[in-house]
Amino acid sequence: MSQNEYTPPAVWTWDQGSGGRFAQINRPIAGATHEKPLPIGQHPLQLHSLGTPNGVKVTILLEELLALGITEAEYDAWIVNILEGSQFSSGFVGINPNSKIPALLDNSVNPPQRVFESGAILMYLAEKFGHFLPTEAGARAETLSWLFWQMGSAAFLGGGFGHFYAYAPEKYEYPINRYTMEVKRQLDVLNQHLAEHEYLAGSEYTIADMSTFPWYGMLVIGNLYSAQEFLDVHTYTHVERWARQIDARPAVQRGKRVNTTWGPESERCIERHSAADLD
Amino acid sequence: MSQNEYTPPAVWTWDQGSGGRFAQINRPIAGATHEKPLPIGQHPLQLHSLGTPNGVKVTILLEELLALGITEAEYDAWIVNILEGSQFSSGFVGINPNSKIPALLDNSVNPPQRVFESGAILMYLAEKFGHFLPTEAGARAETLSWLFWQMGSAAFLGGGFGHFYAYAPEKYEYPINRYTMEVKRQLDVLNQHLAEHEYLAGSEYTIADMSTFPWYGMLVIGNLYSAQEFLDVHTYTHVERWARQIDARPAVQRGKRVNTTWGPESERCIERHSAADLD
Repeated sequence: MSQNEYTPPAVWTWDQGSGGRFAQINRPIAGATHEKPLPIGQHPLQLHSLGTPNGVKVTILLEELLALGITEAEYDAWIVNILEGSQFSSGFVGINPNSKIPALLDNSVNPPQRVFESGAILMYLAEKFGHFLPTEAGARAETLSWLFWQMGSAAFLGGGFGHFYAYAPEKYEYPINRYTMEVKRQLDVLNQHLAEHEYLAGSEYTIADMSTFPWYGMLVIGNLYSAQEFLDVHTYTHVERWARQIDARPAVQRGKRVNTTWGPESERCIERHSAADLD
Repeated sequence: MSQNEYTPPAVWTWDQGSGGRFAQINRPIAGATHEKPLPIGQHPLQLHSLGTPNGVKVTILLEELLALGITEAEYDAWIVNILEGSQFSSGFVGINPNSKIPALLDNSVNPPQRVFESGAILMYLAEKFGHFLPTEAGARAETLSWLFWQMGSAAFLGGGFGHFYAYAPEKYEYPINRYTMEVKRQLDVLNQHLAEHEYLAGSEYTIADMSTFPWYGMLVIGNLYSAQEFLDVHTYTHVERWARQIDARPAVQRGKRVNTTWGPESERCIERHSAADLD
C-alpha cells in the first residue's frame, strides 16, 4: 500500500466495472429500475426480506410475538433476491426508498403503513404489540441506547469488516486493520457489559438483544464471515454465554430460518406464509 | 492496488503504530484508561459532547425545546476532548461504555439515567418532552424509518467516506470508490424523497430531520470533508432546499455552535452552561 499513488479526481464519476463481488447491485443512484408490484399475502403484516442478520432480527421478533399467542403478529415473509436486483423493483422502492432489506407493509391499518430499516421495524412492532420494549423509564433508556448502538455499530461490522475481510476483490491491509480493530473493540464493549448484565438492557430480554444477536452473537457462536479464528472470538466469553442463551430460544431458532436459501436443506424456509412452513 | 499481495494472518494482533490521523485514540479494547469523574453542572440535563455532526444533533433538539419555552430542557454541555482521550475516563465510560460522544446524564430522575448514542438521546428527549416525534401512527413510522436510516447510513458517510477521503494516511482508490458510490446513492435517496416532501417524515419537522441535517445537510450546504466538488453536491437540489430551510431556524444556528472549538472565534461556544453563552 505504501507504493500507492492514487489521486482522486476533482469530481467523482461512476466506473461500472469496479466494485467486487456485489458490483452489479451497487449503484450511486436511487430509485426503481423496473416496474413490478409486490406480492400480497393474506396476513396483516407483509415482510419483504432475506435471512441475513438484518432480516432475521425482524423474524425473530415476529416469532417471539407469535410464541406469546399474539395472533395479530401473523405474517407473510417474502424473499427479496438482492443479487437479482429485486430491491430495485417499483413495489419494493415504494416501501423502502433505500432499497435495502428488510421492509414491512402493515395492512392492518388504513391506509397501509410502510416501515423500513430493521431498527425502526423492531420499534414499530414492539410499540404496536406492547412487548420487548420496556415502558419503565430506566430499562427503556437502556434498550434504546443499545438498540441504536447496534444500528450504528454494525455498519462497521458488515459494511466495513465483512466487506474487506470476506468480499472485496483483494485483501487490502489498511481497511482490514481499521475495521478489525473496531469490531474487536465493539465485541469488548459487549463483553464487559454482559459480564454484569443478563441481557443488554438489564434483566429483561428486549429488542436490543434481538437486534444485536444476529450480528455479534452469530459472529461469536456462528460462522459469520468465517472470521472466528481471526477475531479470536472465544475470548469474548460473556458474549458467548449471552448468545447461547438467546440461541436456545425456540422462537429464535424459527426466526433464523425464515427467508434463507442456504444452510442444511431441511432447515431452509425460503418463504414463510404460515406457522406450518417452519414446523 | 493491483500489486497488493497482503495476506491476513490467522489471528489478528494489534500493531499500535498503524491507523492514520486518529491512531492514538483507536483501540481494539473497551473500558476506562484512567480514573476521572465527570463534572456536574446545575441543570437537570448534563450533556457530554463535541460539536461534530453526532454532537450537534442533540444540541439542536435541546435548543428547539428551549425555543418552545420548555425550561426543563435546560442543560449543561461539557466538552469531551476526544483527541486527548477524555472519552476513556471512568466517568465518561460510566455513561457511555462505547466511549463515543454524545452521552447524556438526566439528573431530573432518581436514580439519574444515562443515555448514549445520538439517536437514542433524540428519542429519549422527544418522548420525555412530547415534541418532534409524532404520535400519529403514520407520521411516527416515517419518523422512525428515517431516523434509523440516518443512524445506519452515516457510518458509511463518516466512518467510511470521510475517513478514506479526508483522514486516512494515504488515498486508497478502492475504498474511496466504494464509499463515494454509497454516499452519492444516499444523497439521491434523500433528494428523491425531499422532492415530494417538505421534511423527512412529511409535513412535520421531526427528530429525523435534526438527525440527518448535520450529516447530509451540512455535506451539501456546508464544507463537511471539503468534498462538495468531488461529490457534485449541488446536483442534489432538493436536499439543498431542505438543508437551507432547516439551517435558517434560530435554534439550529444556536445548536450548531455548542461544544465547538473551531470556526470563527466569535461563533465558538466551547461549553454551554446557560442561554447567555450563545446570546
